[in-house]
Amino acid sequence: MKHEPILVSSTSNGLIKQLVQWQEKSRARKKDGVFVIEGLREIHRALDAGYQGSMYFYCPEITNNVSASQMEGPLAGLPEQATQGIKTYSVSLNVYKKIAYRDSTEGIVGVFKTKDHSLEQLKLKTKNPLILVAEAPEKPGNIGALLRTADAAGVDAFLLANPKTDLYNPNIIRSSVGGVFTTNIATGSTEQIIDYLKTQNIVIYSAILQEAIPYTDVDYTKPSAIVVGTEADGLSETWRLASKAKVKIPMHGTIDSMNVSVSAGILIYEAVRQRMAAPN
Amino acid sequence: MKHEPILVSSTSNGLIKQLVQWQEKSRARKKDGVFVIEGLREIHRALDAGYQGSMYFYCPEITNNVSASQMEGPLAGLPEQATQGIKTYSVSLNVYKKIAYRDSTEGIVGVFKTKDHSLEQLKLKTKNPLILVAEAPEKPGNIGALLRTADAAGVDAFLLANPKTDLYNPNIIRSSVGGVFTTNIATGSTEQIIDYLKTQNIVIYSAILQEAIPYTDVDYTKPSAIVVGTEADGLSETWRLASKAKVKIPMHGTIDSMNVSVSAGILIYEAVRQRMAAPN
Repeated sequence: MKHEPILVSSTSNGLIKQLVQWQEKSRARKKDGVFVIEGLREIHRALDAGYQGSMYFYCPEITNNVSASQMEGPLAGLPEQATQGIKTYSVSLNVYKKIAYRDSTEGIVGVFKTKDHSLEQLKLKTKNPLILVAEAPEKPGNIGALLRTADAAGVDAFLLANPKTDLYNPNIIRSSVGGVFTTNIATGSTEQIIDYLKTQNIVIYSAILQEAIPYTDVDYTKPSAIVVGTEADGLSETWRLASKAKVKIPMHGTIDSMNVSVSAGILIYEAVRQRMAAPN
Repeated sequence: MKHEPILVSSTSNGLIKQLVQWQEKSRARKKDGVFVIEGLREIHRALDAGYQGSMYFYCPEITNNVSASQMEGPLAGLPEQATQGIKTYSVSLNVYKKIAYRDSTEGIVGVFKTKDHSLEQLKLKTKNPLILVAEAPEKPGNIGALLRTADAAGVDAFLLANPKTDLYNPNIIRSSVGGVFTTNIATGSTEQIIDYLKTQNIVIYSAILQEAIPYTDVDYTKPSAIVVGTEADGLSETWRLASKAKVKIPMHGTIDSMNVSVSAGILIYEAVRQRMAAPN
């Protein structure tokens, strides 16, 4: 820490009010091109992924209680280059309680610059990509779980079609445990994403019950996109028409539906299994 | 409906207060051996699974708006034998709002008798069982998702080891979409469940990272139990020692953890895949 932090002890401070707006309103985030990350682990994941911090808020009453091994200076062990030249505010406990969702975080909240998630900027990691596509998922908890699965499976990209919820929603950041930073993400309309996949010669397999074959009967070892819809509405007709195959997970019970993140996990890991077993 | 319903229009009615206790307190449920189900779909699933209703509460202001195809009489199309001789209360909208969690339900709440979930009463459906075991899951949403997966995969049983949350928690009923009724469930201590599995010659495969092999390297076509722990604590040492193999899902990302219901879905569906592919 080369500079002295600025002290904020009033919840009616203008900057604190602005911070709460960035947390709560996707419109405020879009207008200013920033979003809020709470917690040291999530901030580290964002920094590792190349996100740029624009200000930090920390609460000494909490950070001073964090064990010394996790801490070097008030910014809880963040690397110096991540904090250099960035405005830092020391906040009182009552202010921190207003700006933090969790009790268990390490007393630090960061404001970061958003990234461009257009399809144009998307760079795939491999020549034989495996992609997870989700159309119009709404619940932040589901999107978070999808992102964790995408991270675990090591997909080349997670594509969000017709997004209904802003990616930088604090509940997505939290429930993805930072997977929203570690995963290559692009958003677009269903039509734009289908165009993109076709241009890249990536074959589309959609999770659709009608006229479907068991998901295990498909070969995912070539460039593949696995597409899931919402539990309530399934996938739109556009996906059905664009798919090489409609795939379904056999249901042996009476409920006939699974959580979308569980379905996506089963499908994407079948592709991972085939790819690990395949000679290459 | 052979009998006239009893009208209740006050939220301070003693029975309404009792009903709220049954919803909110597992101790009240255990004491009286009853629990509460909200929603027609969930009530149907409980009835289909042999659960016995002991009283019904319905709100005519809501049920009268449900389309005629779903309705036959005030009890929203419940079969006559399910309602015969069972006390039925007609409640005003303000009372219904107090006793219902969801707006979208069909204006009906039922009180049902709990079942015995001891290992002693457990009857497996097949001679070559596939069992999902979860140790000490706490969040009702996770338990609900596990139950939906268990239902979908058609497991012979779902065993809950060292349960921390009462099975009849309203959030479990809701998030399982009734899977808590459709699935064969037993609970017990970890030691009791291991004893049970060993007595039944069911091989134990535990999701444990240390000294683990890829989950796809295991043969689940014989009597098998797949055991998952919590994200925070994993599985206890007891499971490690009792396992034929420790299995892990390969993680190709940076987060190194998945939602427990997603992991369970991937593991149990690998077993289902192998069993469908196996000659028998």
